[in-house]
Amino acid sequence: MAAEAGSGLIEAKLAELGLEQTPEEFIAGLAPHIKRRVEALQQLQEKRDEIEAQFRKERAELEAKYEKLYGPFYTDRAEIVSGSKEVPKKEGDEAGDESVKGIPEFWLTVLLKCDTTAETIKDKDLEVLKFLENITSENIFEDGSPRGFKLDFKFGTNPFFSNAVLTKTYYMLPEDDGVLEKAEGTKIEWQAGKDVTVKVMKKKPKKKDGKPQIKMEKVESFFNFFSPPEVPEEDDDVDEETMEELQAIIEADYEVGATIKEKLIAKAVSWYTGEAVEDEPYYFGGDDEDDLDEDDEDEEDDDD
Amino acid sequence: MAAEAGSGLIEAKLAELGLEQTPEEFIAGLAPHIKRRVEALQQLQEKRDEIEAQFRKERAELEAKYEKLYGPFYTDRAEIVSGSKEVPKKEGDEAGDESVKGIPEFWLTVLLKCDTTAETIKDKDLEVLKFLENITSENIFEDGSPRGFKLDFKFGTNPFFSNAVLTKTYYMLPEDDGVLEKAEGTKIEWQAGKDVTVKVMKKKPKKKDGKPQIKMEKVESFFNFFSPPEVPEEDDDVDEETMEELQAIIEADYEVGATIKEKLIAKAVSWYTGEAVEDEPYYFGGDDEDDLDEDDEDEEDDDD
Repeated sequence: MAAEAGSGLIEAKLAELGLEQTPEEFIAGLAPHIKRRVEALQQLQEKRDEIEAQFRKERAELEAKYEKLYGPFYTDRAEIVSGSKEVPKKEGDEAGDESVKGIPEFWLTVLLKCDTTAETIKDKDLEVLKFLENITSENIFEDGSPRGFKLDFKFGTNPFFSNAVLTKTYYMLPEDDGVLEKAEGTKIEWQAGKDVTVKVMKKKPKKKDGKPQIKMEKVESFFNFFSPPEVPEEDDDVDEETMEELQAIIEADYEVGATIKEKLIAKAVSWYTGEAVEDEPYYFGGDDEDDLDEDDEDEEDDDD
Repeated sequence: MAAEAGSGLIEAKLAELGLEQTPEEFIAGLAPHIKRRVEALQQLQEKRDEIEAQFRKERAELEAKYEKLYGPFYTDRAEIVSGSKEVPKKEGDEAGDESVKGIPEFWLTVLLKCDTTAETIKDKDLEVLKFLENITSENIFEDGSPRGFKLDFKFGTNPFFSNAVLTKTYYMLPEDDGVLEKAEGTKIEWQAGKDVTVKVMKKKPKKKDGKPQIKMEKVESFFNFFSPPEVPEEDDDVDEETMEELQAIIEADYEVGATIKEKLIAKAVSWYTGEAVEDEPYYFGGDDEDDLDEDDEDEEDDDD
């Protein structure tokens, strides 16, 4: 961080606070009368954190209880969307093309009307996503504690892949519900030549009678969502720039998953009609914890 | 959005989905058999949303219950930090300078060790923040529903301003707990010449025997936190660029407040020692709703 005019005091202060030290070194460097008090605070903190662990458990139970209450509405919705359940005509309703079942392209429309998901959809994905019949989510628990959530994408029989359901699962660290441990996706069993996540490049043969060379190249696609990047271990030996890029990719991947869970599944018809798009509020606050990303940007110190 | 090679299908699709239309126009344009089913989904959505309102209420009650349980720990902490409660020496404890009360500069250190708050602190703020004795938060309810939270910054007697407590309050929209309605801060009663949020510029007098001209200029300061920007009304007549800038400022302001509430108050001693800094996880996910900002960036469509 370049020292700017006038920022000397802050820099000196930060150095004094020992930001380069480990917490153990910092505590060891405290005067005895301060250290004693800090240790007392640490004991208080431990007791408070035990209560917080209980809070997280109760909150997860509350969420699970309500997820169950939403269930029947989501089932009804899926049946109306697929056409397995018909909505009777009311008196005065205009006659439509009653050979059309359900609401075609419902989920494709939902995904396209929300910016976060729309940005991941490319031309080639459109034909595939027409076969998307439902998206559901489920919270994951381990020993009664929240561990993350799983998204199921149910597809109708289609010429692209043989899976009936594609799943994406986010596992959070058990002791710290704001931190992603890993993300996993279903391996998609693409039919021959139908993989929309790769581009086949044919190069002219070098020899006149040689075979054309074939090269596969990864391309952007919504379906890369099911091949999420690996979350690096803290002690992985990667340089800072690579780490930052990777972090941005993982955050974007998580944002897509969380948007689908929290916004699209919760209010799918409002996205379909566009009401949720308009509702897009001026500002998303969020009054819960765990929703803050720390930026590690250099401080700009431009006072006087 | 410039049409890039190969992105025609997505653009055509988006146009077909009527993103330029209002939801009412979109629904009016649906074929009768689709419209009937969409209306049925809207009724299901309403019922689900009623349940969600109940969930939000219960969740807020749960949070309030635990806020109360944390209270005694925060009170003890404040007393140890201020020195009004002493931590007895244990056998074998080194003797320190027992004339020093409590933990000096505790909260200043906490604020400086967290990037989000440190970035708002400028050189001139350091002397003032040495007088910061405690930060507390309180959830706000209205008719039993959550309405936001309030942060109290308790200061010792100091030569900079006469207020004993500076308060910052965030009000969320009652029907949508992820949306900020407004933020309000205490008007700081600065002592003459002590306002660190302004710079006094003296210009040479134009006439030889004239008085020097004095100009006051706003400067960056932590204490601008108590003069938050106004959240514009949806129908305010501001251009898009101004709106985006304002949104960034409001989001940054909210992030500082939420960080103080959720991270610093919750684990102040861990920030003081630096443990929370190290704990800063590789990735903050967040498994709650309302924590997603929609980016309105242009889609980059580079598949072909």
